[in-house]
Amino acid sequence: MSQATELLSLVSEEISHVEAKMRDGVSEQYTDLQAVVDYLVGAGGKRLRPALTLMAANFYPVDKEKSYALAASVELLHTATLVHDDLIDNALFRRGMPTLNTSWTPAATILTGDFLFARSAQLAAETDNVRIVNIFAQTLMTIVGGELHQLFNSGHGQVPTEAEYHQRIYAKTASLFAAGTETGGILCGAPESETEALRDYGHDLGIAFQIVDDILDFQGDEQTIGKPVANDLRQGIATLPVMLFNQKEPNHPTVLKAVRREPIPNEEIQALVREIRAACCLEASLAEARRFTNRAQAALDRLPDNAYRQAMHGLAGYVVTREL
Amino acid sequence: MSQATELLSLVSEEISHVEAKMRDGVSEQYTDLQAVVDYLVGAGGKRLRPALTLMAANFYPVDKEKSYALAASVELLHTATLVHDDLIDNALFRRGMPTLNTSWTPAATILTGDFLFARSAQLAAETDNVRIVNIFAQTLMTIVGGELHQLFNSGHGQVPTEAEYHQRIYAKTASLFAAGTETGGILCGAPESETEALRDYGHDLGIAFQIVDDILDFQGDEQTIGKPVANDLRQGIATLPVMLFNQKEPNHPTVLKAVRREPIPNEEIQALVREIRAACCLEASLAEARRFTNRAQAALDRLPDNAYRQAMHGLAGYVVTREL
Repeated sequence: MSQATELLSLVSEEISHVEAKMRDGVSEQYTDLQAVVDYLVGAGGKRLRPALTLMAANFYPVDKEKSYALAASVELLHTATLVHDDLIDNALFRRGMPTLNTSWTPAATILTGDFLFARSAQLAAETDNVRIVNIFAQTLMTIVGGELHQLFNSGHGQVPTEAEYHQRIYAKTASLFAAGTETGGILCGAPESETEALRDYGHDLGIAFQIVDDILDFQGDEQTIGKPVANDLRQGIATLPVMLFNQKEPNHPTVLKAVRREPIPNEEIQALVREIRAACCLEASLAEARRFTNRAQAALDRLPDNAYRQAMHGLAGYVVTREL
Repeated sequence: MSQATELLSLVSEEISHVEAKMRDGVSEQYTDLQAVVDYLVGAGGKRLRPALTLMAANFYPVDKEKSYALAASVELLHTATLVHDDLIDNALFRRGMPTLNTSWTPAATILTGDFLFARSAQLAAETDNVRIVNIFAQTLMTIVGGELHQLFNSGHGQVPTEAEYHQRIYAKTASLFAAGTETGGILCGAPESETEALRDYGHDLGIAFQIVDDILDFQGDEQTIGKPVANDLRQGIATLPVMLFNQKEPNHPTVLKAVRREPIPNEEIQALVREIRAACCLEASLAEARRFTNRAQAALDRLPDNAYRQAMHGLAGYVVTREL
């Protein structure tokens, strides 16, 4: 049993209820849609987002059905954005399994994403808590707004600043982690200061998680992470390792070509990846991720000590060690 | 001033607040997105859905800001589905203006639709009423579920039954009309029986509205309605005029080809359209639409008499006369 599996085992029984809710809600007559929803739910990863949501919701006695609905809402929102993203990026694999868009028409893929958004909103509303629904809607706006910003700024042509990078990975990842832990706290009626601590934990963990994702993009191969190495850079997106490399080696011609979205031969990308690795920019990025997991763990000090807090502490450590 | 404009004038000042809310909520840094939202809001039609929502919300004293948010939520939900539909259908015009997908990439169009869904959810949540948010989410599921059903059933290959047709136009149109008037009633605290009457009115009016839309598809030309004549049939969708024609002339070869989604030369479609018109199937369809506007008007009898009820009565009459 891996470290993460052990830490997540605290809520594994609850996660099975969450997955049941994720599969639920499709009208009986829509058998094809049910098959797709089952496929997407079955292709799910470690369920980190709903697990953290459940842990946060377990700090105080909570209506279990509502906490399952909330966690399912968080994971379906994530799934819905992935379905549209994979279509937009023409991605072929996700978690080692073929994406929906490889076998389906764009029309069916768009509508399936829309359906998952709707189901996710419905599950959020099942908490009967308007504040939670509000955070849910705001988070969806943040995620989609961030993607649109990235799309529009494609002509920007420069290596991003630290502030720009943080804004991007907040929108892309940390916003949903933060929403999950914050709404978990709200649902179980945690005191406001603790709800804030839960939100801070989710935020910082999410930032670290995305930095690690960005590091993995320079490490893994297609088999492990389901996409080519330096995939972001090939799409003109410079992440933290590139930003740190740019500080050491300003105006590297390949980096400039990448952020200007000029076509780059594969060998040239591979050479840049080797240079970035040799300049220890992955290690430096990891140090930055650790700074955020440390912050996340410090936020937990503002919460009562219990098994959930301990698991959350451990998960923060796991995030910066996973597959590295 | 047309009849409809006169009837809608009762809420025209309120509609300007609704439009302001529709344009609102885009982060200041996203100037391109704001331009698109402004374009989409500016391209809006008669605002029948938000107007009906406002009228329903005005039966009892209501928090105006919340009723504007609710009406904006209804119209943005409608707009979001249109943005995705036009992309899916490769539509070039909507209300005589170029669609977003003609000038934008699919990626930007998908994400703009997602953003409008998110904003719409946020506006629904501004009512601070979980029952309203629930109806909102259920309606989005109904709309998208209906579209998916249509997509999956493309191999069905038969003229739909009356029940199938009603289910389709409920999902496509009546569900949102009904949601608008029902949530309007909920928001102003109308008694349950009156909220139900408001829902029934919205439902029946929506059914009539869609039947009339389906009739217009056999009447208008590209200039008037922004798409080619018999557009649905060209896509293999048999609507009420075709269903009624099929009762008179079962197994017409062109109808069979259409529902089997076989390619049909334009002249053959045109010839079928002439036959459908000659068989008085548009008149018979209109009679069916009138049956529903009569039902909608009858539902109003269960509500207190006031200027809004009178306008809603008149709008039901307008729906079956517009552009016919």
